[in-house]
Amino acid sequence: MKGAILVLSGPSGAGKSTIIHKAGEAIGDYYFSISTTTRAPREGEVDGVDYYFVSKEAFEEGIKAGDFLEYATVHGNYYGTSMLPVQKALDEEKLVIFDIDIQGHRLVRAKLGDVVTSIFITPPTLSELEKRLYGRSTENNEVILKRLKSATNEIKAIAEYDFLIVNDDIQRAAQEFILVANSARLKHCKEDLNGFISQWLEG
Amino acid sequence: MKGAILVLSGPSGAGKSTIIHKAGEAIGDYYFSISTTTRAPREGEVDGVDYYFVSKEAFEEGIKAGDFLEYATVHGNYYGTSMLPVQKALDEEKLVIFDIDIQGHRLVRAKLGDVVTSIFITPPTLSELEKRLYGRSTENNEVILKRLKSATNEIKAIAEYDFLIVNDDIQRAAQEFILVANSARLKHCKEDLNGFISQWLEG
Repeated sequence: MKGAILVLSGPSGAGKSTIIHKAGEAIGDYYFSISTTTRAPREGEVDGVDYYFVSKEAFEEGIKAGDFLEYATVHGNYYGTSMLPVQKALDEEKLVIFDIDIQGHRLVRAKLGDVVTSIFITPPTLSELEKRLYGRSTENNEVILKRLKSATNEIKAIAEYDFLIVNDDIQRAAQEFILVANSARLKHCKEDLNGFISQWLEG
Repeated sequence: MKGAILVLSGPSGAGKSTIIHKAGEAIGDYYFSISTTTRAPREGEVDGVDYYFVSKEAFEEGIKAGDFLEYATVHGNYYGTSMLPVQKALDEEKLVIFDIDIQGHRLVRAKLGDVVTSIFITPPTLSELEKRLYGRSTENNEVILKRLKSATNEIKAIAEYDFLIVNDDIQRAAQEFILVANSARLKHCKEDLNGFISQWLEG
């Protein structure tokens, strides 16, 4: 049966990339969905790796053409997910991993709910998040304050997620992630289940 | 945080007990909920192990007293789950495993939905189920025909379950079961999540 979708949300600084990296091959063959954004690249960010960086005009054309599975405006910039590579990966029975915010999660769940498993990943406390964001010093204070404010709102939405991973211990967090990612692959869409029922009755 | 619930449904003959036995210690500490029933014990079935076998009168008193988390009538007999041992196991942070039918699943989900993960387990086809039921010859033909008819109805409800495990290969089925059972433990009830949010913001 077809591939499945794993949505990850949580504040920047929660350690999502570190957890995925740590999990490595234990979660099998996956496609990490690269978002498209109109925000400026941060130092060290590479186009086509971290994001597809595009102009506001190009993004708005994509919206008009119906290219986006989901998109949203965050801190004045567009962020979105092109449907084409996602569909390709699903057809190849890969686990598609999205790193999107709570708005994106709602949209993806509404569109592809049957095969979505979602995880909210967070540092143990707001003050720990603050420490991590100032510690890595890749953003200026204004951006960090915006991120902390977002996180304070986003944490209230954790009940919308299938799972919560508290990243206070990277080993345990990665183990939990591996478990959820591999069980996510066992989800089936309604269409496939209906096919199964027909075959089951006749078989 | 508190224990979680794993609901297993699927036709008698799907191999549910074999799968749990095969999974063994890989799913950690769990409490297998023993149902109470008014049906007669089958050969080899032991009271307090396979079921609590009680009289119709005793069962109906339990219903009046509100002792049952869920109960239903199947083939003219009562089957139900006492809440007391379940609550005790949840308080001890155990995974509580239920082997109940689709009606039971609906009731448990309605009451304890936050912490429920459900799996429908089935042989690969109806004819394979038939073969297994006649093969083990623990029931008479009339009972087997009733079971096959039930299975034909129950299979249509698989989309209500979080997961489907097709038991055509016991090794693979047990591996899938282990994955789902261990991820089921990561579920949190709304109450615990609300507690987490408060601590997160203050911490």
